[in-house]
Amino acid sequence: MDTGVEREYTPRDRGLPVTQLAPSVVTTGTRLFAEALAEQAVPSTHATFTPPLEGPATTEALVRLLADPRLDQANSTALERVLAVRPHLVDVRPAAEVLGLRPGEFHHAGPPVSWEQAAGPLRGALIGAMLFEDVADTPDEAERRLATGEARFSPCHHHGGVGPMAGLVSPSMWLMELADASTGQRSWCSLNEGLGKVLRYGAYGTEVTDRLRWMSTVLGPLMQDAVRAHGPIDIGAILAQMVQMGDEAHNRNRAGTLMLMRELVPHLVSGDAPTSRVAEVIRFIGGNDHFFLNAAMPAAKLMMDAGRNIPGSTLVVAMARNGTDFGIQVSGTGNRWFTAPAELPDGLFLGEYGPEDANPDIGDSTIAETAGLGGFVMATAPAIVKFVGGDTNFALRTSQLMYEITLAENPALQLPILGFRGAPTGIDVTRVCTTGILPQINTGMAGKIPGTGQVGAGLVKPPAACFIQALTALAAEAPELPQPTS
Amino acid sequence: MDTGVEREYTPRDRGLPVTQLAPSVVTTGTRLFAEALAEQAVPSTHATFTPPLEGPATTEALVRLLADPRLDQANSTALERVLAVRPHLVDVRPAAEVLGLRPGEFHHAGPPVSWEQAAGPLRGALIGAMLFEDVADTPDEAERRLATGEARFSPCHHHGGVGPMAGLVSPSMWLMELADASTGQRSWCSLNEGLGKVLRYGAYGTEVTDRLRWMSTVLGPLMQDAVRAHGPIDIGAILAQMVQMGDEAHNRNRAGTLMLMRELVPHLVSGDAPTSRVAEVIRFIGGNDHFFLNAAMPAAKLMMDAGRNIPGSTLVVAMARNGTDFGIQVSGTGNRWFTAPAELPDGLFLGEYGPEDANPDIGDSTIAETAGLGGFVMATAPAIVKFVGGDTNFALRTSQLMYEITLAENPALQLPILGFRGAPTGIDVTRVCTTGILPQINTGMAGKIPGTGQVGAGLVKPPAACFIQALTALAAEAPELPQPTS
Repeated sequence: MDTGVEREYTPRDRGLPVTQLAPSVVTTGTRLFAEALAEQAVPSTHATFTPPLEGPATTEALVRLLADPRLDQANSTALERVLAVRPHLVDVRPAAEVLGLRPGEFHHAGPPVSWEQAAGPLRGALIGAMLFEDVADTPDEAERRLATGEARFSPCHHHGGVGPMAGLVSPSMWLMELADASTGQRSWCSLNEGLGKVLRYGAYGTEVTDRLRWMSTVLGPLMQDAVRAHGPIDIGAILAQMVQMGDEAHNRNRAGTLMLMRELVPHLVSGDAPTSRVAEVIRFIGGNDHFFLNAAMPAAKLMMDAGRNIPGSTLVVAMARNGTDFGIQVSGTGNRWFTAPAELPDGLFLGEYGPEDANPDIGDSTIAETAGLGGFVMATAPAIVKFVGGDTNFALRTSQLMYEITLAENPALQLPILGFRGAPTGIDVTRVCTTGILPQINTGMAGKIPGTGQVGAGLVKPPAACFIQALTALAAEAPELPQPTS
Repeated sequence: MDTGVEREYTPRDRGLPVTQLAPSVVTTGTRLFAEALAEQAVPSTHATFTPPLEGPATTEALVRLLADPRLDQANSTALERVLAVRPHLVDVRPAAEVLGLRPGEFHHAGPPVSWEQAAGPLRGALIGAMLFEDVADTPDEAERRLATGEARFSPCHHHGGVGPMAGLVSPSMWLMELADASTGQRSWCSLNEGLGKVLRYGAYGTEVTDRLRWMSTVLGPLMQDAVRAHGPIDIGAILAQMVQMGDEAHNRNRAGTLMLMRELVPHLVSGDAPTSRVAEVIRFIGGNDHFFLNAAMPAAKLMMDAGRNIPGSTLVVAMARNGTDFGIQVSGTGNRWFTAPAELPDGLFLGEYGPEDANPDIGDSTIAETAGLGGFVMATAPAIVKFVGGDTNFALRTSQLMYEITLAENPALQLPILGFRGAPTGIDVTRVCTTGILPQINTGMAGKIPGTGQVGAGLVKPPAACFIQALTALAAEAPELPQPTS
């Protein structure tokens, strides 16, 4: 960004040899070098630098992987499939119908976890869902039945879907179903409850249950009618517009929510429901700037699922957290999770809350970053820094840094502020390990005590260990290196 | 925007004298200097530069004005009033009711103009309005009656309102009425017709008349009910959000339109109108990304009117074009127009149209730039360059340049990409004349032949002569300079 300065004229412009240039000094690593130069009146530029990820046998694994003759083709194929997905919202139905989920069965965010290991917000959401489904009368009873295994829970990702924060899905909850226009592949996500004391942040009780009941009896059915009357709604087109309207589709979904509303409203109005109900639904959607998140997430899931199971591909196809562990899945290693303890986000807190109230990173919403949204396109949504922390330069730098660890630029998601460059898309395990640059995630923060709800929003990264594990596993499946002949 | 380079370390950081720095060369004016240096292997930076505006007695006028002891206080007072305005949409009513406009009376954009001098699009719109109001049966009859003065027309600005492009208002057209929450001052603008063959671009005929009739019988009345049921809608709050959502509120009003719709829809739904009519209205508003322009314009008008008539103030309070002339009004010189022939915009054309089809600059929509919107906040809406031309760097540079000619930064309109700096607001005649920097305007382009409609959108500037005239007039009203005593 300059004010009138047009460009630098250097000897290079005239084809002169570079050796005729005045020397310029770039320093990296410790600041001591830069400071010593400054003391000697020598201008220098300090460049940030992260060392490659280190771990047992990392270098050997990297060599083996980068020598894999399948690598380029496998990643091209994976990316081609990812970028070909055209996600559409095709239906809204109860989870019991979509997934055959039965009373006492639940899905949740992140990799698998036991009740004993489950974090506060996930426990709170499970308790809340037991009360909502009337399979327990009190929180104590719910906890008992969850601890004994009478009630069962498994990851959303294992059933073709995603859920934000605790990501809890129970049989009576209604889901948005998305489909890829060309392949017919499907994905799903629950309906967004709004902010404050909500189940996905681990809150439970009357307020939570009443809202969920209204969502199941009013919001879901009315949305079903509207979506069916409309026909498939092009979520990809809305995403393309959003990233030109200050949304990064993870923690800012304002324009997306409004555009989804614009599609639904004429059909809500023309349906059979009483106008008071229609007005309620419109106020609920319009009053929740995050409503579209639950359409962006399954769109990202649909994209990344298309890139799964390609032997030799180092593409990350899922990043998800259950509040205890952060897990990633990679195209070349099937459904295997590579997990490590989730980090605590660094960010801005609501009201009186502080870092000591926050639970470690939780939710499937990192599917956004996995698909090149969220933290990866912060540059196009600089207003997000007032919600998650950082500043405008951080937002610009972050998006530019993410190109270093991704395999493609998504031509369908153009970022005007970066000269309409496509969003950095498709995290590559080898690039993360060689550059030491970890994916940047924008996230909400849940209170660690069950029942608290949201305490803030912030910035977080996956643990490096997930990528080192993935690298090792990928290397193990790569062809052996040819032995030196001499 | 950097990728990992954090900052420059220079001797300055250590408090060393600047003389110890390596010399750096800045060139300006002709490129010859920069090129000669480059040939000698000396790096240099070329800075753009515009000379001050020149005209008869400009320097003398500037000296007299800048010496006016009232200047600072007058401009502070004007800006304070401008920035204190809180525009709300308070009603939607027919022009006959709001303005007492009678059959055969019309308002139009820009400074006053005669039928003989009127440009194609204004003539086309006047003809169309005559047909719509049934005061003429054919275009020929309409022209005859306009030429003879049987039908009369005067500027919107003379009646407290604004209109985009030809800006035509006739008695049966419905207006949005805005009011300032604290002072109760009012302003108005017509309802936006959408794009293509529309009256404001000078098109007329059945398609135009039918749409206007529907707007008067369905859209206007339903909006009236909804606005009255809602209560005053905070247009200032929507503007604040828009500039964080990729809108510049002149040629991009996507987020603004959606946010206005969000306010109206629950009340449209709950009203007495048949659902088919409600759905029509929602589709019409939702299908026109420019709908909010006609709320942003009267909001800007309300702001700038608050800054009028302050003796000694050099604040520009209106910029408007009638398709023939570009006119400006200044706080310190009352309702006087300073006019010069309007320029031809440079931009992107629709379909087969080219520069030879375009009419010179037209419309009151430059009230946006007058109030620090539109071209002044392009940096926050870089996607606009795909509509009006230029590139992302141009958008960033333009906003930064506009701070050079404005008196304030609007804290209510924060631009995230510029580190949440307030929009550059309040054009100062003396700054324009001393810097030679003219206000940047984003605009639509009308076809020059009456009846054509829109041919494109582009970038344009006011003629320098308007500012030189204003400067001279302001100086004439400033106190005489003290005579040298020696």
